[in-house]
Amino acid sequence: MAGTLSIVGVGPGDPELITLRAARLIGSAPVVAYFCREKHPSQARTIAQAHIGPATREMRLIYPFTTEVSVNDPAYHQNMSAFYDQSAERLAEELATGNDVTLLCEGDPFLYGSAMYVFDRLRTRCQTQIVPGIMAMNGCWAQAHAPMTHGDDVLCVLPATLPEAELADWLERADAAVIMKIGRNMPHVRQAITRSGRMDEAVYVERGTQGAQVIAPMAEQDGKAPYFSLVLLPGRKRVR
Amino acid sequence: MAGTLSIVGVGPGDPELITLRAARLIGSAPVVAYFCREKHPSQARTIAQAHIGPATREMRLIYPFTTEVSVNDPAYHQNMSAFYDQSAERLAEELATGNDVTLLCEGDPFLYGSAMYVFDRLRTRCQTQIVPGIMAMNGCWAQAHAPMTHGDDVLCVLPATLPEAELADWLERADAAVIMKIGRNMPHVRQAITRSGRMDEAVYVERGTQGAQVIAPMAEQDGKAPYFSLVLLPGRKRVR
Ligand SMILES: C[S@@+](CC[C@H](N)C(=O)[O-])C[C@H]1O[C@@H](n2cnc3c(N)ncnc32)[C@H](O)[C@@H]1O
Ligand SMILES: C[S@@+](CC[C@H](N)C(=O)[O-])C[C@H]1O[C@@H](n2cnc3c(N)ncnc32)[C@H](O)[C@@H]1O
Repeated sequence: MAGTLSIVGVGPGDPELITLRAARLIGSAPVVAYFCREKHPSQARTIAQAHIGPATREMRLIYPFTTEVSVNDPAYHQNMSAFYDQSAERLAEELATGNDVTLLCEGDPFLYGSAMYVFDRLRTRCQTQIVPGIMAMNGCWAQAHAPMTHGDDVLCVLPATLPEAELADWLERADAAVIMKIGRNMPHVRQAITRSGRMDEAVYVERGTQGAQVIAPMAEQDGKAPYFSLVLLPGRKRVR
Repeated sequence: MAGTLSIVGVGPGDPELITLRAARLIGSAPVVAYFCREKHPSQARTIAQAHIGPATREMRLIYPFTTEVSVNDPAYHQNMSAFYDQSAERLAEELATGNDVTLLCEGDPFLYGSAMYVFDRLRTRCQTQIVPGIMAMNGCWAQAHAPMTHGDDVLCVLPATLPEAELADWLERADAAVIMKIGRNMPHVRQAITRSGRMDEAVYVERGTQGAQVIAPMAEQDGKAPYFSLVLLPGRKRVR
C-alpha cells in the first residue's frame, strides 16, 4: 500500500497560526518534506518545528539556485522544471515504500506555492490531500488592523512581478488589493502605486505575524524590501 | 481594566481547520459572541463548539431579518447599520466590565465578515486583536484539488452581488477568480461565466470542508445554490 502525500499549509509565520489538522499531520507522518535553499533553514519548517517529533525523518528539497536568479533568464524555468521533476520523483519513491509524507508550505499551498508544481506532477500518480493554510495576506491584514472587503468590494491579488503599467492598471480597477512577492520589485511597485493614485491607502507589511514584523505606510517606504513582504490596499467599502 | 475584544476566524466549516490560537482564545474567554439568525444555530459557533467550555457565557448577536432581505431595499442598510451599532454597544459594555470577549467569525474575519462592521465601530474605543482564519475559498480549493495561482497569475475575488456585465468583465480580465455569495445570485452568475467564455474551467463548491460538501463542474449546475457556496476558476498558469 502506497503512502499518502499531505500538502499542508503552515500559515504566515506565527506558529500559533497553524491549523489543528496541520499540527496533527506534521506530528503523525514518518516523513516531513519541505523546500529550502542550500545552507538555509526552511521558513515552513521553522513554523512547524514544535510539531515535528524526534523520530520524524526530514526530506529537504533544495532549490537549485543559491542566489536569486532573474525569472527573465530562460535558464531559470528550465532548471526549476527539472528541479520539480526530481522533487516529485523523490516524494513518489518515498510514498511507494508505504510511508505517508507531509509536505510543508508557507501560507496556503495553492496560492503561489512551490508545492503546486509537485502536486501538478503527482496528482494522478499518488494519493494526495491538501490542507489549506492561513495565507500571508490574512496574517498581514489582521496585524495591520485592516478590514479588506466590505459589501461589493472586489479583491485583487497581484504578483509584483507584473510590469509596472499592468500593476497600475489593476490597482485602478480593484477595490481592495494585495501585492505579493515585493523583494527586488520594490521600485516599480512604488511607481505603480503612485501612478494609480492610491499611495495614501497603501500599507507595507514585512514578516507579518513574525518576530521582526514591520507595518508602515507604503508612502514612507523607500528602501529595499525583503522577499517576505507585501502591500495591502484595503477596499473602498463599496455598498450598492 | 477593560477587556480585550478578540475577533477570531474559525475557518470554512471543518472543525479541524481552526488555528491553535483561535482554539486557545475560544477556550479561555469568559464570553464568546457570534452573529446568528433568530432560531438558527450560528455556523461559526458550530465550528468552534469543541473549544467552548461549560462556564463560558454566550452572546448571540441576532440579525434583524429572519428571511433574506434584498440589499437593494433601502431599509436593509438602515436596519443593518442600527443592528451593528447595537451589537458594538453590547460588546463595549461587556468589555467595560473587564471581561475579554472572543467574537467568532466564519472563515477570515476581514473578508466580507460581519465582524468588520463591529470592528469599524470599536477600533478606537476598545482594545482589539484580530486572529485570521482559513477562508472559505482556501478550504474549497484544497478540497477541489485546484491549485489557483502559478507564476504571474492574478487572483480576483468577486462578490456575486455585482451586476452580470461587471462580473463577466472581471472574469475575462482575471487569471484566477473566486465568486462568493452565490445563493440567490446563481442565475446571473451562470450568465456572467458563460459570457466570459470560461464555463468549462469553473468549479462549483457548496459547503466546502463540511459534511454535506458538493464539488461539481459549474456547467452541470442549473438548480438553486445555498448561501454557503462559491465558484472557483483556477489560474491560467501565466509564466512570463
Ligand atoms: C511564493 S509566495 C507564497 C505565498 C503563500 N503560499 C501564501 O499563501 O501566502 C511568497 C510571498 O508571500 C508573501 N509573504 C509570505 N510570508 C509573508 C509574511 N510573513 N509577511 C509578509 N509577506 C509574506 C511575500 O509577498 C512573498 O514574496
Ligand atoms: C459573508 S461571506 C463570508 C466569507 C468568510 N469571511 C471567508 O473568509 O470566507 C459568506 C460567503 O462565503 C462563502 N462560504 C462560506 N463558507 C463556505 C463553505 N463552507 N463553502 C463554500 N462557500 C462558503 C459563500 O460564498 C458565502 O456566501
